[in-house]
Amino acid sequence: MRTGFTHQFMLMRENEAKKEDHSNTTDHLELRAETCPIYLNIINVYRTNTCGELRIENVGQNVTLAGWVQRTRKMGGMTFVDLRDRYGITQLVFNEEKNADLCAQANKLGREYVIQVTGEVNERYSKNANIPTGDIEIIVSKLVVLNASQTPPFTIEENTDGGDDLRMKYRYLDLRRSNVRANLELRHKFCLAVRHFLDSKGFLEIETPVLVGSTPEGARDFVVPSRMNPGQFYALPQSPQTLKQLLMVAGMDRYFQIVKCFRDEDLRADRQPEFTQIDCEMSFVQQDDIINVFEEMTKHLFKELRGVDLGDTPFLRLSWKEAMRRFGSDKPDMRFGMEFVELKDIFTGKADFAVFNDAAYIGGICAEGCAVYTRKQVDELTNFVKSQQVGAKGLVYARIQEDGSVKSSVDKFYSQEVLQEMKEAFNAKPGDLILILSGEDANKTRKQLCELRLLMGERLGLRDKNKFALLWVVDFPMFEWSDEEGRLMAMHHPFTSPKPCDIEKLDSDPASVLADAYDMVCNGVEVGGGSIRIHDAVLQAKIFKVLGFTPEKAQEQFGFLMNAFKYGAPPHGGLAYGLDRFVSLFAGLDSIRDCIAFPKNNSGRDVMLDAPGFVDQTQLDELHLVIKHPEA
Amino acid sequence: MRTGFTHQFMLMRENEAKKEDHSNTTDHLELRAETCPIYLNIINVYRTNTCGELRIENVGQNVTLAGWVQRTRKMGGMTFVDLRDRYGITQLVFNEEKNADLCAQANKLGREYVIQVTGEVNERYSKNANIPTGDIEIIVSKLVVLNASQTPPFTIEENTDGGDDLRMKYRYLDLRRSNVRANLELRHKFCLAVRHFLDSKGFLEIETPVLVGSTPEGARDFVVPSRMNPGQFYALPQSPQTLKQLLMVAGMDRYFQIVKCFRDEDLRADRQPEFTQIDCEMSFVQQDDIINVFEEMTKHLFKELRGVDLGDTPFLRLSWKEAMRRFGSDKPDMRFGMEFVELKDIFTGKADFAVFNDAAYIGGICAEGCAVYTRKQVDELTNFVKSQQVGAKGLVYARIQEDGSVKSSVDKFYSQEVLQEMKEAFNAKPGDLILILSGEDANKTRKQLCELRLLMGERLGLRDKNKFALLWVVDFPMFEWSDEEGRLMAMHHPFTSPKPCDIEKLDSDPASVLADAYDMVCNGVEVGGGSIRIHDAVLQAKIFKVLGFTPEKAQEQFGFLMNAFKYGAPPHGGLAYGLDRFVSLFAGLDSIRDCIAFPKNNSGRDVMLDAPGFVDQTQLDELHLVIKHPEA
Repeated sequence: MRTGFTHQFMLMRENEAKKEDHSNTTDHLELRAETCPIYLNIINVYRTNTCGELRIENVGQNVTLAGWVQRTRKMGGMTFVDLRDRYGITQLVFNEEKNADLCAQANKLGREYVIQVTGEVNERYSKNANIPTGDIEIIVSKLVVLNASQTPPFTIEENTDGGDDLRMKYRYLDLRRSNVRANLELRHKFCLAVRHFLDSKGFLEIETPVLVGSTPEGARDFVVPSRMNPGQFYALPQSPQTLKQLLMVAGMDRYFQIVKCFRDEDLRADRQPEFTQIDCEMSFVQQDDIINVFEEMTKHLFKELRGVDLGDTPFLRLSWKEAMRRFGSDKPDMRFGMEFVELKDIFTGKADFAVFNDAAYIGGICAEGCAVYTRKQVDELTNFVKSQQVGAKGLVYARIQEDGSVKSSVDKFYSQEVLQEMKEAFNAKPGDLILILSGEDANKTRKQLCELRLLMGERLGLRDKNKFALLWVVDFPMFEWSDEEGRLMAMHHPFTSPKPCDIEKLDSDPASVLADAYDMVCNGVEVGGGSIRIHDAVLQAKIFKVLGFTPEKAQEQFGFLMNAFKYGAPPHGGLAYGLDRFVSLFAGLDSIRDCIAFPKNNSGRDVMLDAPGFVDQTQLDELHLVIKHPEA
Repeated sequence: MRTGFTHQFMLMRENEAKKEDHSNTTDHLELRAETCPIYLNIINVYRTNTCGELRIENVGQNVTLAGWVQRTRKMGGMTFVDLRDRYGITQLVFNEEKNADLCAQANKLGREYVIQVTGEVNERYSKNANIPTGDIEIIVSKLVVLNASQTPPFTIEENTDGGDDLRMKYRYLDLRRSNVRANLELRHKFCLAVRHFLDSKGFLEIETPVLVGSTPEGARDFVVPSRMNPGQFYALPQSPQTLKQLLMVAGMDRYFQIVKCFRDEDLRADRQPEFTQIDCEMSFVQQDDIINVFEEMTKHLFKELRGVDLGDTPFLRLSWKEAMRRFGSDKPDMRFGMEFVELKDIFTGKADFAVFNDAAYIGGICAEGCAVYTRKQVDELTNFVKSQQVGAKGLVYARIQEDGSVKSSVDKFYSQEVLQEMKEAFNAKPGDLILILSGEDANKTRKQLCELRLLMGERLGLRDKNKFALLWVVDFPMFEWSDEEGRLMAMHHPFTSPKPCDIEKLDSDPASVLADAYDMVCNGVEVGGGSIRIHDAVLQAKIFKVLGFTPEKAQEQFGFLMNAFKYGAPPHGGLAYGLDRFVSLFAGLDSIRDCIAFPKNNSGRDVMLDAPGFVDQTQLDELHLVIKHPEA
């Protein structure tokens, strides 16, 4: 690269020296060209084009490409190589007759070798309509191997032969697969579109610290020992909740941040110890102001990134209570109906069937056209609802026969009149299958019935990944009882405002208080949620009291926020989206892992980096820590 | 807000129910309007306008504003209130004669009260040309106190009376000051402009994990104990260096990320334990490709955000060696000249002056017009260079007199001829002051002289914050000797590529090997730096060997990277900018803290959150940790 003086550079230097205005450097500085190292402005030394851009109109051009060997095949005296980079695949041709040496080199190329080739763009004889570069090929005149490759442990194809564990260990190879890469490209575009949109609405992206204090109300914190403050720990934020509220107190008016958050929880399939949030907060707003902005954003994203027009009408809104009643879930999948029908009035006391008579709740769903289910299939459903994961005691079913009569598993208890009444309640037709659960705890039973509804929706093909059903679930209860803690817990978080009309019930009947809280749900997934916050120090103190905090404990843990509220806190509220989940939904992925570059496994390990790991004793000493190994 | 049914909502619901295509919800779902909670689409209940947008053309309009009371003043029967929000300040008027009650309420407002007012926009009698809303005022007809405020502990003005500690404790009040807020607004715009630019160049923003493995080659890591992996720790990344290299191996081609990084170092004034990097990496590139892209980005940012045109010519490039020789720094401030002149040839052996005769280096600078400096002023400079911070043994000075003769502190040693020769070397004029340092270690002495140059530049007003001098420092040495470690250390990091022509010297003379590394320097501040990376496992292993790693240790710590290099790593390189520093420079700030929402102090504490803090023993137990308190 360093090739000494060049004419061009000399001219540039001389012109610069002549100019009166050296604003770029200095008025005083005498430029001494002779002592400066000289660099040629060489660009594209590795390639003139990417592997995705050459077309029929480039035929005849001499080009240089660089990339990975996707595959090679010999056909007669020809060797064809598919060269891949992020942008696409281009076919290379080596002709044994014309250049035997070069062709011999090409025949030695292994999968995933990194090569650079120069050659002429040629129109293909047999075109490939499946790829954008399918009309052309490169007749290679020069081949350079930039780096060899061992045989990769799995195939770098959309449908790879690599299992999950192997792919995670070699994630850098897994990411070469075009479908995995496409997820990261989508995520990039998604974040940029979110930033454009929120910027256009006057939101400022403000970074909040990652090393913060521990907030015990919530999940378990990851902590970071402080060397400079012996025995003390930072915590990694579970969300920037209190910090964004302080930004509202600071008058920032509209804040957002796409930000990493951390929870040290036992991991389930779709959870990561670190995850990314689109975190937002607004001042001088009520619930509708927030819902309007983010509904607009969501429509914008669907339109821009998925080409899906969600229409002009507002998203459906369901109260938490109604969502539970009709779908047994605070995040109902609204891509299909199969709504719950409550049957208590129909069944109770109509027969000597204790299961129903003693139940606090009897409800069912109607699966269209499923009367043909065999005994075995119904047994499968029964086993499903009785599984540990669902936890129901049993399943009652009823087939609607061709003649309109009902054939059920409780025929010996109930008269056909009662069963017909039930049929009417479902508006069921001949050929339908009615599935019924009952139980002593209404909401618990509803949740079980929800699982069954989702399963049946899946089986009936009603959960199409390319269909999107969005809604807001609102009017959440302020608190929920925790058997574990033996006290009321905040359903969202302790900074959520109760509905103003419910404030008076905080003392008398706190469990009935509703919150100004809302979740955005898409296809049965909670993609975002938020609330109007408390901005009054007295009300905040009262909520802490209901949650069982002593004033001292509240002051110790959230004093900074309550103090801030004494200096002119504006009314404010906000919400946060789970980015990983939102992008997964857009990409139609089964797991959020597939849209995360380097995810962790269920033990919180990064198997590629082999992290976490052990650290030197000297470092532990500096941190004043001793490891107490669990008993063997 | 919930006011029961509204006509509009009913219509919407009915239309929705009628539509054949329920793509937004479901084909099956029967919408039951009567059970849905109804929300009015109330927006702007708190305000119709911000405090920054009303102009003369709005006169006569009835508006509602919300914000903070900046100040109130009584004049005769009138009370004037300056109402502030993020967008500006609007004057409110209360007339005692017209509405005595309202005026009495206004008179009770304290500083920083949050209020909402409704009133009519009126043309001001005495206009204020200093603010955009200065032509109008609001004749208030309704006043609501949304939240009271205690008297803030310092004034919320550009020039506040609050000291640093107080302002940091109440940072949420400090951020209300318009100049501090402006820094965060600039930072937001800066990041957005960076993202636009890099997206337009095909870069993908890809998030890398925050919980990674420890990388001992570098500064001290913050570590995070893993509950699920007892005795093991994650580390917080000092930079995503190895991860972005893996992304290149993964074929991502062009990556960037605006990302938090962490270093557990003893803090100096301009360091934070967590800081933000603009982290970038490109494949199939050489040094010039990278420099070109980021030089273009820098010019774009200066133009867009500061209105500064840096011109079409490339930035100056200095080799590390030349930068040291001419300015004694690898980040020279090029806003002014005052270049070093080497004097060894002129002085050595010309007199019986051991200080110079024994010196490995004698060099000086010429301070224009400073011959008038008094003895006291020169003594100050001597004390400065002899201070612990600089560390020189003494200062030799020489005044150029009106008649061209030289009057120096070494007159008794050197003849006027020698001194004239020196004068010529500086091209000094009558009235100039020459300042000379010497020492046994050339580069150490140069660094001392650099400090003196910067001081004199400051004194002579040559370091204008509104002037920007950018350059690239290139050709860094690959290694530097560490007395502390007793071995060669990587000057950048161990993944930096040596210059190809120097590879053969890795065994014979490693200290002389130059690296394909480059820093972008602006006004004496290193704003960015990077390198071409090694992409060959064998060369990488060799560098680790030079750095004193055993093969086992190298494998243990960087095996994941060296293994990745076996599967087709492309040639790649990149760089990273220090965002906090870059933005500070744009904003003309003295400290990076001023462009960070919630910075930490020199002990790594967030005094507002009072973090770090102690954690419960139960949590330590879960982490298998015991704190060993340092001896009292």
